[in-house]
Amino acid sequence: MRRPLLLLALAASTASAQTPPVKPGWQWSTDTVMKVVNAVRAGRSLAPKQWPGGARVGVLLSFDVDNETVQLRFGEPTVGALSQGQYGSRVALKRVVDLLDRNRIPASFFIPAVSLMIAPQQVDIIKKSGRHEFAVHGWIHEMNTTLPGPVERDLVKRAIDTLTSMTGTRPVGYRAPSWNFSPNTLNIVREMGFLYESSLMADDSPYELLQNGQPTGIVELPVEWILDDAPLFSPQGNAYANPRDVARVWMDEFDRAYAEGTMFLLTMHPHVSGHRSRIVALEMLIAHIKSKPGVWWGTHRAAAEYVKKQAGM
Amino acid sequence: MRRPLLLLALAASTASAQTPPVKPGWQWSTDTVMKVVNAVRAGRSLAPKQWPGGARVGVLLSFDVDNETVQLRFGEPTVGALSQGQYGSRVALKRVVDLLDRNRIPASFFIPAVSLMIAPQQVDIIKKSGRHEFAVHGWIHEMNTTLPGPVERDLVKRAIDTLTSMTGTRPVGYRAPSWNFSPNTLNIVREMGFLYESSLMADDSPYELLQNGQPTGIVELPVEWILDDAPLFSPQGNAYANPRDVARVWMDEFDRAYAEGTMFLLTMHPHVSGHRSRIVALEMLIAHIKSKPGVWWGTHRAAAEYVKKQAGM
Amino acid sequence: MRRPLLLLALAASTASAQTPPVKPGWQWSTDTVMKVVNAVRAGRSLAPKQWPGGARVGVLLSFDVDNETVQLRFGEPTVGALSQGQYGSRVALKRVVDLLDRNRIPASFFIPAVSLMIAPQQVDIIKKSGRHEFAVHGWIHEMNTTLPGPVERDLVKRAIDTLTSMTGTRPVGYRAPSWNFSPNTLNIVREMGFLYESSLMADDSPYELLQNGQPTGIVELPVEWILDDAPLFSPQGNAYANPRDVARVWMDEFDRAYAEGTMFLLTMHPHVSGHRSRIVALEMLIAHIKSKPGVWWGTHRAAAEYVKKQAGM
Amino acid sequence: MRRPLLLLALAASTASAQTPPVKPGWQWSTDTVMKVVNAVRAGRSLAPKQWPGGARVGVLLSFDVDNETVQLRFGEPTVGALSQGQYGSRVALKRVVDLLDRNRIPASFFIPAVSLMIAPQQVDIIKKSGRHEFAVHGWIHEMNTTLPGPVERDLVKRAIDTLTSMTGTRPVGYRAPSWNFSPNTLNIVREMGFLYESSLMADDSPYELLQNGQPTGIVELPVEWILDDAPLFSPQGNAYANPRDVARVWMDEFDRAYAEGTMFLLTMHPHVSGHRSRIVALEMLIAHIKSKPGVWWGTHRAAAEYVKKQAGM
Repeated sequence: MRRPLLLLALAASTASAQTPPVKPGWQWSTDTVMKVVNAVRAGRSLAPKQWPGGARVGVLLSFDVDNETVQLRFGEPTVGALSQGQYGSRVALKRVVDLLDRNRIPASFFIPAVSLMIAPQQVDIIKKSGRHEFAVHGWIHEMNTTLPGPVERDLVKRAIDTLTSMTGTRPVGYRAPSWNFSPNTLNIVREMGFLYESSLMADDSPYELLQNGQPTGIVELPVEWILDDAPLFSPQGNAYANPRDVARVWMDEFDRAYAEGTMFLLTMHPHVSGHRSRIVALEMLIAHIKSKPGVWWGTHRAAAEYVKKQAGM
Repeated sequence: MRRPLLLLALAASTASAQTPPVKPGWQWSTDTVMKVVNAVRAGRSLAPKQWPGGARVGVLLSFDVDNETVQLRFGEPTVGALSQGQYGSRVALKRVVDLLDRNRIPASFFIPAVSLMIAPQQVDIIKKSGRHEFAVHGWIHEMNTTLPGPVERDLVKRAIDTLTSMTGTRPVGYRAPSWNFSPNTLNIVREMGFLYESSLMADDSPYELLQNGQPTGIVELPVEWILDDAPLFSPQGNAYANPRDVARVWMDEFDRAYAEGTMFLLTMHPHVSGHRSRIVALEMLIAHIKSKPGVWWGTHRAAAEYVKKQAGM
Repeated sequence: MRRPLLLLALAASTASAQTPPVKPGWQWSTDTVMKVVNAVRAGRSLAPKQWPGGARVGVLLSFDVDNETVQLRFGEPTVGALSQGQYGSRVALKRVVDLLDRNRIPASFFIPAVSLMIAPQQVDIIKKSGRHEFAVHGWIHEMNTTLPGPVERDLVKRAIDTLTSMTGTRPVGYRAPSWNFSPNTLNIVREMGFLYESSLMADDSPYELLQNGQPTGIVELPVEWILDDAPLFSPQGNAYANPRDVARVWMDEFDRAYAEGTMFLLTMHPHVSGHRSRIVALEMLIAHIKSKPGVWWGTHRAAAEYVKKQAGM
Repeated sequence: MRRPLLLLALAASTASAQTPPVKPGWQWSTDTVMKVVNAVRAGRSLAPKQWPGGARVGVLLSFDVDNETVQLRFGEPTVGALSQGQYGSRVALKRVVDLLDRNRIPASFFIPAVSLMIAPQQVDIIKKSGRHEFAVHGWIHEMNTTLPGPVERDLVKRAIDTLTSMTGTRPVGYRAPSWNFSPNTLNIVREMGFLYESSLMADDSPYELLQNGQPTGIVELPVEWILDDAPLFSPQGNAYANPRDVARVWMDEFDRAYAEGTMFLLTMHPHVSGHRSRIVALEMLIAHIKSKPGVWWGTHRAAAEYVKKQAGM
């Protein structure tokens, strides 16, 4: 998640070689436009009338535990960059989990398999409270949108196997490392039998994914760059904002979710938000949310199971 | 409007192949400088002495309803990017229109034809109050500055036809998708009989466009990047500012427009400002403006008709 | 001043072809390092013990009146970009000068000759109060660091001639369009008999320029990117900050200049700071400075003449 | 430190030619992953139970005195860029040291040898209080990660010799100019007998460096881009934040370090933080820290010696 614009650019250029002809959109027929738009599309809303216990809003916290894999995936890690990644497992994860556990809040941890293999002690830290979920985030944070279908499928399969064996539970949730789909990603998600997917952005509330206009039974728990800690927290990146200012935006997102009675899903990264000046943003947010009645905190799995049941799926 | 610097760069490089010789400006004669500068130029001010009802300031809100077309135009859309676009018609447009309608405020919606074809339900949402205007914003948000004249003309024509047929009214306003002119754009705007144009930036108040020094009868309703929501609201972009801070700048622009008795024209995008933490900026702005007496809120069409009449055109 | 990083990059790559061998610095001898460093260097400080009237701090406001020349210089102006430039002469300059004249504050206007030729009515606006200075800022905001010596010299000469003829006074101050020197710039400044130069950054106070270790008699009035309105005010640029936040930084710069009893030199651009939400920053700054006793406001010319006399030059 | 992203990119691309095969990480065996990750890795924590005098937190201030070397290293300095560098020795260093000395606070100055040779008067300014440390920061701020091993070694050796001869003391601390390691850097640090290294980022507290899994006896005093003044203070850079806002982040980092009883290490640059509007940030931080009891201020050398002794190394 550290070079998102570059990653999207890579994804776009590679995906284009496989899917639509690379002629500009103004040369497309309306049929082509509709076919491309409908390949993967948001279907019926799965926003529940109320959340478990009669709560008016569902709050889902995600942590993408990338650590060194962001540096490793392209095969050119430097010593300095790897040390930034190690901070995640050595220092940051404990700080994050301590905060959650002190507040008795569940969260979902999307972990590239290699990240867990490099620092297997992370399993116990996350499992300690019994509240948290492990979910799939690729083998080594590979750029799934740039891979041939069989390679993408094999890496997802190995990721599932590794997480199952290391955590003792088969994961039911998938988040694409690139926060984007190749032409094969949805097929892979369906083949692997995932309960939910969490990489797309068409709504504030859960929805069912359509494939070429047909319902898939997959619950989409949508994300947003607004609700991600990485883009604005790197002093060496492009856009930047101070953690306390970013927390203000997150609170505005939450307040409207609360007013509208929908969902608030926030993605963070231990190696990003686990730094001392950034944990402040999460502390401010948790305190703000906890000051309101009628909030349900859940893992992504619990949310997906609940909305699916409510919708009679 | 999501990659404005890149778009301008593309526009510049293509336009240069068609118009002035690509030698640096310091090798140009003064005659060449003047000819290039005067090809399209701001003419007489159409700032009215007062706005309808004796108001001291005119407030014009624009929404560029780009949605998926920003991703489609270059022919390489990814699934993730398309889902960000779908957010516009699925969630954001209603949030924006509800806010306007609750406040009984008119606005002008500049919509690429393909954006409306992908989600035709947007027509009814916008038409519901009877206050809003539909205007042209290209066929598929094509980069008009990079196109051969006949292609640019054909796309504008198809856009007019589609909007006329889908909304029931022939649009009278044009905004270039690139917020910029090719060497052919002004000719096309004149041929198509548009009442007003809204893409240039030479003033804070309406003015008449000159072509090679001659009056055109076209009313220019000028825009500004300062008064656009897109450049500063993308966590993945370059420059960034929090919505509440951007609202402060918009209020400063309004306060001076109010003091000087001129015009305040703000451009937003539903898929940008319709997000929960950004609608806050528009809410703050509306509340601020509504606290002042002597404000006239109008569509771009109503403003153009009024200033033209006041100027005796 | 709109694409400063790119400009510096261009300058660097071109200058390198003419001057030092393009081998990395760690392969240079110490002699080469010293020779390159000393080609143009800050000499003795010309910070006066006190400013005219016994003032403790000198305040110098510059306006670089670039307008359309930023777009014209590379020979690829677009209609949209030119309209942004026209805003400078049509709207912004008057707003800026009105503010200065209302406060009876002098300023220095560094104007590319072509900018004045395109909109000659700017001369009278600036001359009206009798307080302001015209100074040289190139012919067409050419990238002086990239030009062969004779071309650079010819453009400076034409700029001097044009300003002399249009304003009635021969300018005595030079500011490089690139805020940087080619290997020939200092020679040209000396040949043309300028009193002062204002493009370099080695101090907060005036100093004498050295050339290859020898005093030149030229007064340097140093600038800084911190004290320029352009880098942080473009929503489409890279770094961005709200005008009110930038004003806070300028006030911090002033407060320390005041405490240390030195100089505060701020560069703005009418087409940048003359916008409604940015004039606020200048208004805040002026109000802040005017709240302190012991401040001398002067043109760059008046400052250069004063410090030269104080130093017995 | 002015173009950190570019520098990291350069480092990565060059390092990759020497070390791991340039195939993407998802094609690596687990053994390769582990070997690459463990080449240089954080070992046991050297966080002391308490700091000297029973203090609960150790505060270490670093200044990287780069000045002109940032411009010189690539062999293409411009006059303007060199003048920005000269500001460091001519104006900024004194302002920084005065602030430290007034507050009786020690600091460590990491100085490229060429920076000291260009302005040798810096030695006396730094030595005056008797509190500060000189340490190695390369010969000319060379990009150590891009150099062949023997060249990198030779430049470090020349830097040690120059600092020893100019300051009278052999330096015991090393900070890589690139804040990154080539495959040879750790070997060079060990061969040269340095007490500590300060370029990596795996913890908030001191730790021992491991090489291929073996303890090295080298104390790592970790840095972080969050705790560096350069990335956010350039109006011409990418990300930007106002100095007072950055100070708020530093205070948040300190407050958590204080609460956890660990270490606060901040890196600044005289030519960056020595500007008038930025020294404000350091003043705010020092005032904040001095308001708390139980703080130990030390040089990096004193900290390294202390934690090594506490750990029985």
